[in-house]
Amino acid sequence: MYKSLKEEVLEANLALPKHGLVTFTWGNVSAVDRQRGVIAIKPSGVEYDVMKASDIVILDLETGEVIEGDKKPSSDTPTHLCLYRAFTDIGGVVHTHSRHATIWSQAGLDIPAWGTTHADYFYGSIPCTRQMSLDEIAGNYEWETGQVIVETFGRRQLDPNQMPAVLVNSHGPFIWGTNASSAVHNAVVLEEVAYMGLFSRQLSPQLGSMQQPLLDKHYLRKHGENAYYGQ
Amino acid sequence: MYKSLKEEVLEANLALPKHGLVTFTWGNVSAVDRQRGVIAIKPSGVEYDVMKASDIVILDLETGEVIEGDKKPSSDTPTHLCLYRAFTDIGGVVHTHSRHATIWSQAGLDIPAWGTTHADYFYGSIPCTRQMSLDEIAGNYEWETGQVIVETFGRRQLDPNQMPAVLVNSHGPFIWGTNASSAVHNAVVLEEVAYMGLFSRQLSPQLGSMQQPLLDKHYLRKHGENAYYGQ
Amino acid sequence: MYKSLKEEVLEANLALPKHGLVTFTWGNVSAVDRQRGVIAIKPSGVEYDVMKASDIVILDLETGEVIEGDKKPSSDTPTHLCLYRAFTDIGGVVHTHSRHATIWSQAGLDIPAWGTTHADYFYGSIPCTRQMSLDEIAGNYEWETGQVIVETFGRRQLDPNQMPAVLVNSHGPFIWGTNASSAVHNAVVLEEVAYMGLFSRQLSPQLGSMQQPLLDKHYLRKHGENAYYGQ
Amino acid sequence: MYKSLKEEVLEANLALPKHGLVTFTWGNVSAVDRQRGVIAIKPSGVEYDVMKASDIVILDLETGEVIEGDKKPSSDTPTHLCLYRAFTDIGGVVHTHSRHATIWSQAGLDIPAWGTTHADYFYGSIPCTRQMSLDEIAGNYEWETGQVIVETFGRRQLDPNQMPAVLVNSHGPFIWGTNASSAVHNAVVLEEVAYMGLFSRQLSPQLGSMQQPLLDKHYLRKHGENAYYGQ
Repeated sequence: MYKSLKEEVLEANLALPKHGLVTFTWGNVSAVDRQRGVIAIKPSGVEYDVMKASDIVILDLETGEVIEGDKKPSSDTPTHLCLYRAFTDIGGVVHTHSRHATIWSQAGLDIPAWGTTHADYFYGSIPCTRQMSLDEIAGNYEWETGQVIVETFGRRQLDPNQMPAVLVNSHGPFIWGTNASSAVHNAVVLEEVAYMGLFSRQLSPQLGSMQQPLLDKHYLRKHGENAYYGQ
Repeated sequence: MYKSLKEEVLEANLALPKHGLVTFTWGNVSAVDRQRGVIAIKPSGVEYDVMKASDIVILDLETGEVIEGDKKPSSDTPTHLCLYRAFTDIGGVVHTHSRHATIWSQAGLDIPAWGTTHADYFYGSIPCTRQMSLDEIAGNYEWETGQVIVETFGRRQLDPNQMPAVLVNSHGPFIWGTNASSAVHNAVVLEEVAYMGLFSRQLSPQLGSMQQPLLDKHYLRKHGENAYYGQ
Repeated sequence: MYKSLKEEVLEANLALPKHGLVTFTWGNVSAVDRQRGVIAIKPSGVEYDVMKASDIVILDLETGEVIEGDKKPSSDTPTHLCLYRAFTDIGGVVHTHSRHATIWSQAGLDIPAWGTTHADYFYGSIPCTRQMSLDEIAGNYEWETGQVIVETFGRRQLDPNQMPAVLVNSHGPFIWGTNASSAVHNAVVLEEVAYMGLFSRQLSPQLGSMQQPLLDKHYLRKHGENAYYGQ
Repeated sequence: MYKSLKEEVLEANLALPKHGLVTFTWGNVSAVDRQRGVIAIKPSGVEYDVMKASDIVILDLETGEVIEGDKKPSSDTPTHLCLYRAFTDIGGVVHTHSRHATIWSQAGLDIPAWGTTHADYFYGSIPCTRQMSLDEIAGNYEWETGQVIVETFGRRQLDPNQMPAVLVNSHGPFIWGTNASSAVHNAVVLEEVAYMGLFSRQLSPQLGSMQQPLLDKHYLRKHGENAYYGQ
């Protein structure tokens, strides 16, 4: 019944090791079917090289209950659910511990927009969340992880459609897109941007953000109404 | 009609991912045929693994109009055209966001000549352009990108035949050569030199340029009239 | 007689180059069979690509004498024996000179817990031993290497079951687990954590440890009585 | 006539790209046959993937004249000849621009002995030469490069058998060994040690050398009369 959704999510999960974004089983991708009100997500702790489409778990978007699948869903499922409910245009979510995005998360720092590679995908600094409170950690931790992301976007007035990634403090990145595959694409770009930002800052420790008009130009030539990149 | 030119350009574009210089479709190579007054360039946003010679676009060197091909040319085409018109000896141009050259671009810094690897290919510091003005960004942006490169070479009295690369501020490198393949070769070297420079500077933050006579020696043993390297 | 033990140890040794943890023959894995009172370990200085199960050496856990095998055991065997005797729950031991864990060893520094990747496996800072004394170096050096590890865990009141790795000062890491394969798994994670820690500290030189409750949460969701990660 | 010598040198040259030590044709390996008074060396500027044993050039050890081969020998041949004449026990020489060893060369710094990986192969700091004088650069440059290496070993009273590598200032490393293959082996280790040293120093900028007794212990357990490593 959810065959093509599961296959999309399987393929997106398998793309993570192919792009060097994950070690062992440390990543997960989900997709949402908003018409049917379900999400599909990677099972918890299953190796990528034995994962099959039938291992992908289908859950109700509203209740979070498992609808189909005999494996336990990723332990990060509540975070994914929280993001799909709050960010109503997104279609796919990725979580990784990719090395350089995680380094910025561990340092608790935003990744400033320092070049057009960044500007082509992320419309401003990629935000790092505040540390979670003791109550949030002791409570429904994975759900609260989503909540602190949503709070960050609210407080900073960020549009999740123009800023498809966040760094969870002391943890690692969540990345999204219009579907599972575009979320993985954005996860690859985030890792590139995180790598280049790390060493740009080393070369020039006081480096200010790039010029706003250049950021506008690059972001909008790919994403605005007047986009002219690609076929 | 432009079959061999297209094949040369296809092959040079495919060499970019092979050398680890590009992610997704973030690079482009062109070549010029000055006798016929045309350039051949990668189409915009097409994946490397499905690109065919027939996807390569042929444009008029003077007018920039498409002569052959049913794909849109790379959005960076005006920059390539600008370079071919100003630097009249070059035969191929490459643009990448290769990691370490881009890091120097983002930091807005020249790459000083710190060793013979550099001196074998680049006759002095590899220049980084100034930031572009608001008018340049708002105007014909990709053409102005070429103009600011040409201005940099003029102002610093650099010979593009002896300095086959530039770092565009807040963006990334453009590299050229006598043909598309030599431009790719120089792009690989630039990335090596950018990597080694980054960490040479970390080891020795006040490192001055290498001795001018050693720079002369290495550059000229490969490129001068009395070159004696190779068969 | 020790066929399956030897095969387990062979396979775990071959996993080291597969995970990029060793150069040449610079690593070794052993496993213990506590019921039979023996350990199985890699032979000294044998290339991974020609190593066979029959090359694996079986030694008595108590006396350290060779019971089976015609090759010399790894020169680090006494360190492995020392760890198995002192840490009575562990089943496998790995030694590597993996790049980033070795960098922390050379700097003589603990790896602080700076993120959930760390917290998922290591319950606190990964300790670096003190430098060895002249007597320890001049004496039964490899045995004393084990002793200084055991002393470090005693003095700091660390539980080897919750802290499955140590950095030997000026040398490199030893890593363990419930068996040879889990020890290799932990060695891969250590290298990830060492890499990310190195550059987290570069981004934020005064970075304090992560919040203790978050460390508890992540370690215990995978390892405590109420673990809920995986199938 | 020199068939097996050429094959040994071909194989050692092909090992350089396999170990990631060279880009394009930027490395060369030679071997000496002291009984016949000849060296065999890579031809200049020939791609590794088309190089054949018959391309390897044989030269007279004393006069430097080509004895066999129709290709020009590597432009670094005089440096190799100089080393073979001064360091009379060595059997093979390698030159690369491997990334991290070259970084130390460009910074003009010795690589201090900071761990047992280093101590297993290099008996002390790996020396970096002084800058070459204008006369040396303008004269027989490649020969003078060898001379400045020999001078460095003389002035610092280093034994080339215990210190099988040097960093040529502003250039890159030369490495040697008892034959071509062991020289390549040492070149791989040098690159490892250079990488780990770079980031050990970043973690601990004032890091002093490792303890001399530990250096002695590790070097001598592999290389001294009482060596006990390997089969």
